[in-house]
Amino acid sequence: MKLSKLGEFGLIKKLQKKFPCISSDVLTGIGDDAAVLNVPDKNILVTSDMLIEGVHFDLTYTTFYQLGHKFLAVNISDILAMGGNPKHFLVSLGIPENCDADNIYDLYSGIHHISGKFGITIVGGDTCASKQGLVLNGTLIGNAAGRAITRSGAQEGDGIFVTDTLGDSAMGLFLLMHMKKQIRSCKSRNTRVNVLGKTLACRDVLSLAYKHQLPQPAPLKNTKSVTSMIDISDGLLADLGHICDESKTGAVIYKEKIPLSGELLSVAKKLGRDPVDFALKGGEDYVLLFTAPMNYRTPAYRIGEIIKKGRYIIDGSGRKTRFKAEGYEHFK
Amino acid sequence: MKLSKLGEFGLIKKLQKKFPCISSDVLTGIGDDAAVLNVPDKNILVTSDMLIEGVHFDLTYTTFYQLGHKFLAVNISDILAMGGNPKHFLVSLGIPENCDADNIYDLYSGIHHISGKFGITIVGGDTCASKQGLVLNGTLIGNAAGRAITRSGAQEGDGIFVTDTLGDSAMGLFLLMHMKKQIRSCKSRNTRVNVLGKTLACRDVLSLAYKHQLPQPAPLKNTKSVTSMIDISDGLLADLGHICDESKTGAVIYKEKIPLSGELLSVAKKLGRDPVDFALKGGEDYVLLFTAPMNYRTPAYRIGEIIKKGRYIIDGSGRKTRFKAEGYEHFK
Repeated sequence: MKLSKLGEFGLIKKLQKKFPCISSDVLTGIGDDAAVLNVPDKNILVTSDMLIEGVHFDLTYTTFYQLGHKFLAVNISDILAMGGNPKHFLVSLGIPENCDADNIYDLYSGIHHISGKFGITIVGGDTCASKQGLVLNGTLIGNAAGRAITRSGAQEGDGIFVTDTLGDSAMGLFLLMHMKKQIRSCKSRNTRVNVLGKTLACRDVLSLAYKHQLPQPAPLKNTKSVTSMIDISDGLLADLGHICDESKTGAVIYKEKIPLSGELLSVAKKLGRDPVDFALKGGEDYVLLFTAPMNYRTPAYRIGEIIKKGRYIIDGSGRKTRFKAEGYEHFK
Repeated sequence: MKLSKLGEFGLIKKLQKKFPCISSDVLTGIGDDAAVLNVPDKNILVTSDMLIEGVHFDLTYTTFYQLGHKFLAVNISDILAMGGNPKHFLVSLGIPENCDADNIYDLYSGIHHISGKFGITIVGGDTCASKQGLVLNGTLIGNAAGRAITRSGAQEGDGIFVTDTLGDSAMGLFLLMHMKKQIRSCKSRNTRVNVLGKTLACRDVLSLAYKHQLPQPAPLKNTKSVTSMIDISDGLLADLGHICDESKTGAVIYKEKIPLSGELLSVAKKLGRDPVDFALKGGEDYVLLFTAPMNYRTPAYRIGEIIKKGRYIIDGSGRKTRFKAEGYEHFK
């Protein structure tokens, strides 16, 4: 249905009906001047993320469902990076004229799917017209669940850990940007597709593209001895740089210890690219990067250690090179 | 300075330095994955508002300072409409290439001025590039300060009150849209200016324009017996309609009792317009509209009463006409 028929208030009513938000800690939800939330924990966490069409996403190869999923996932990732539990989400949408109500329902389906997984309630936001492409802003409120883990607690001698493989999302984006609508020719995981003159397995291409389009943030279960934490959104080097900046330390990482997926290794090899480059500078992994004492035991990969000063990468042959915080930065 | 030189992280650092955010209830502020806030009250209020260039504001007659002020003011107004105290603000900015760092500092000056007045701390947000004009999203968190006042408590027999004059902002916008840059010829309040073929006093023009550009939300001090409340952003009729919808009541308002400023009366007369029209349908007043028992005493204007069913306006001669919720609605 056309939004011009439904109007702002009609759309909000439809969304409330399709995606009812019932939770005992929401005293007043969508539809008043502000939401009223019951927060039993004294300390709350709040994060806000803006996604703009043409900067953060491209609707030629991103569905509204995927966009909705990712929109909430990136905010969840920020709350998890503080060691918290995500609870309440506010959705602001600036919607251009060429959008249809069904597009917005699809977007909300994506939000709803992941919000259900984490027990998050949508409690408010804003809905307005945009003359300039789709704009989304999400604000997620969480419980600190005890101690909030900041970026500033890393100490010399700590190990540096990541919770999952890196670089998949960046390679996924690389493939999507080159394939655009051609990604739709990957109808089954068992077919092959031609990208940049090379034949790739759709199984690998889709797996990497999904890592970019449908990131799956997951909490770190044992945070007791964790000294600092951040989620990798700008890229490993840039985000490790943020920890070093805030903790006033240096860091050394071992290139060979960075976990890489089989799909990334296979596709990078075929395209003649260095997979580690995608892992170091790519970003949008939404994997947790944290520091903890060396003897920390959990399903996580230890990739380096915190040192007093300087930032280095050591490769397989033991060669040490300095690194700078290279990664995505707006305006630059 | 150009933003391409400063970069995203450089800009954030500059803003932190220029506008330091120190408050004992902010355990972690700007610069981590999420802010950590201490909220002594168990119930919190949250509201989010998006402002998009070309839809909500026009930079040909709005300064960045004014925009910053209004951006926070509209969010404050929502928290005040729940009877709460605004406390913590998150600022998301999508900044186009033609913006300069100085523009953003001016915007923050506007935010900072009004945040200081209300004791609000800026605790986080997001800063990114926009290919599509300036986009702002603000999320304001407040204390419920006891009972939150929703839109749904109005009862038959209650009086309907507003806290200030209505229609000034809408007339201000009308003048600004016709005058555009010509508003700058109003250098002193004692000069006159030609608008739509009529000679108007700059004193009146500026006063009305400022009501639109620099709204001054103010709390209702005595909320003890208030049964419902909303801030007038969409227009008196539309917002009273929201109260009626949520409270499942009707309403009658007396046209003659609607408070109008001398400036609005004077300018409307000269332009041959009905000033009450601006008050009923204009919107963006950011004045509080509330219901309370008839004997409620406070500096507020009683403009009507809640009835069982139907929505009516009664004019000076006693003529009763039905009204619909006319006001601003996106997409329509």
